[in-house]
Amino acid sequence: MIVDCHGHYTTAPEGLWAWRKAQLAGLKNSSSKPEISDQEIRDSLEGAQLKIQRERGTDVTFFSPRAGSMEHHVGDAAVSAAWTRECNDLIHRVCSLYPANFVPVCQLPQSPGTPPAGCIAELERCVKELGFVGCNLNPDPSGGWWKEPPLTDKWWYPLYEKMVELDVPAMVHVSSSCNPAFHFTGAHYINADTTAVMQLIQGDLFKDFPTLKFVIPHGGGAVPYHWGRYRGLAQDMKKPLLKDHLLKNIYFDTCVYHKPGIELLLKVIPADNILFAAEVVGAVRGIDPETGQYFDDTKRYIDAIDSVSAADKKKIYAGNAKKVYSRAAAALQRLEG
Amino acid sequence: MIVDCHGHYTTAPEGLWAWRKAQLAGLKNSSSKPEISDQEIRDSLEGAQLKIQRERGTDVTFFSPRAGSMEHHVGDAAVSAAWTRECNDLIHRVCSLYPANFVPVCQLPQSPGTPPAGCIAELERCVKELGFVGCNLNPDPSGGWWKEPPLTDKWWYPLYEKMVELDVPAMVHVSSSCNPAFHFTGAHYINADTTAVMQLIQGDLFKDFPTLKFVIPHGGGAVPYHWGRYRGLAQDMKKPLLKDHLLKNIYFDTCVYHKPGIELLLKVIPADNILFAAEVVGAVRGIDPETGQYFDDTKRYIDAIDSVSAADKKKIYAGNAKKVYSRAAAALQRLEG
Repeated sequence: MIVDCHGHYTTAPEGLWAWRKAQLAGLKNSSSKPEISDQEIRDSLEGAQLKIQRERGTDVTFFSPRAGSMEHHVGDAAVSAAWTRECNDLIHRVCSLYPANFVPVCQLPQSPGTPPAGCIAELERCVKELGFVGCNLNPDPSGGWWKEPPLTDKWWYPLYEKMVELDVPAMVHVSSSCNPAFHFTGAHYINADTTAVMQLIQGDLFKDFPTLKFVIPHGGGAVPYHWGRYRGLAQDMKKPLLKDHLLKNIYFDTCVYHKPGIELLLKVIPADNILFAAEVVGAVRGIDPETGQYFDDTKRYIDAIDSVSAADKKKIYAGNAKKVYSRAAAALQRLEG
Repeated sequence: MIVDCHGHYTTAPEGLWAWRKAQLAGLKNSSSKPEISDQEIRDSLEGAQLKIQRERGTDVTFFSPRAGSMEHHVGDAAVSAAWTRECNDLIHRVCSLYPANFVPVCQLPQSPGTPPAGCIAELERCVKELGFVGCNLNPDPSGGWWKEPPLTDKWWYPLYEKMVELDVPAMVHVSSSCNPAFHFTGAHYINADTTAVMQLIQGDLFKDFPTLKFVIPHGGGAVPYHWGRYRGLAQDMKKPLLKDHLLKNIYFDTCVYHKPGIELLLKVIPADNILFAAEVVGAVRGIDPETGQYFDDTKRYIDAIDSVSAADKKKIYAGNAKKVYSRAAAALQRLEG
């Protein structure tokens, strides 16, 4: 079985964007829902994520709202809450229509300067009522201005307490960038991954939350490439070895879009800490002229690496996903048959 | 011959910091200079950078003021200009005392929101009067708040015109971070490298400045690890292949502190675009318990890689430095004998 832990609904039907437009124009009353038929949902997926699953042999995708559209910086906390609820409800519909293909992961109703405790109700609703197995946590709800305290700050603790209680991990994932310095998928996403890991190195968060789990997307940003730098910085700061300081709690996905990068990731980070992902349909959509294959066909890179054992690949492809997203384990087990 | 293109005077004598303290306290009159003897300069280097040069077999270091202390965000443009002048003059003294060991690279008197044209006079003074061969350009003089236009914006053009006229490259290097989200050497430095390259991908700067040269430090941030992502993003944006779009103008140093990272860099980036560097005494000062060697002994990693030809290693160790820092070429040639 192959589980892709990182998929967003980047192809959501027009009705969702029309609803958002109306919301921001101030025309929405609180009881309206986006006008989207089941058929529109099917159409949006059959030629895209589902086609790619079939072509590449991916069985199940952990599926969340489009990251770039979380837009926590737009409007106030009430706007974010209403938008988040619609995005999550749509993911729930997707996963109800295709329970063998998608497992739901939710967006959180974050808002700049608003305590993350405000996200608890929506997280509980998604997990307890709708069967979601994880959430996406934005370390920078300002959208590129980085005004929130580091992830190790007590500011975030009430949300972590709830995540631990519900036993759901968070993928640390920013949204779009309002800062002209940062291209969103080329700089902001990758920088956020790097920044989050460095915050976790500086702090001692997992002493307070030994069972809290974070997935760092996009292959961990710059971190595996600079693993020596991070091991060295941690040592200079008198922190424990990273394997003890971080690797019981953080995991890296495999969204690295060329073979040398995947090779490095698999060489440097223990197999127990790597979860397969491709993030399709995502940031890079073309075919690599050097290989004739899609840049984001990350399974192909992993399959071609001989130095990783079959047992370790099994962990990367599914075992670790069951371990980290424990609420998905039963469903995945069932699908595996 | 082995040239380290990336060294900062991190061990500068106490007199420099005393001068800075007095400057910021408003006690400095404009004619005072830091009180530093030649012997203090020698003492600050003999047990540190010079010792490491001897131990590791590095011949020459391109030497600039401590990056974290450029502090362009502190005070106004006049404060930055006075501080920059003292820092550069001290580098000039170092290089005059040790002309066989250090070649000078200057700090620029940047200040947030102040046009970069204001840096031209100091750049000219350093290059024409004092023999400097390059400069460090800070893409974020705010110190972690990223309020300046991207490096491709016309905002920067007057400085680029002067760099081209003088034929000096810039290392794109931020200073310290005032933003609690960003650890300075663990997040801000690496993010800035990644951000700068993505800005250059989005723009067409080198169409306007075909001979402008940038060195991206710290192994290019996350870029080589995600080279497939960047090739793919460029392709989706209808930009030329990165080898044509960027690699006639940008270069990566080798400040990557473990062998797998250096292996990836040397595999992914053409040897013509890599300049040897270690950044000592720098961000990571300890010994790697996995190897028993200093993390920042990057020469050891390169020497141990068999897949790169002797001719390519010669380029990485010295040839490219002579090419990119053309004003250093004659001096390096002379030292080589």
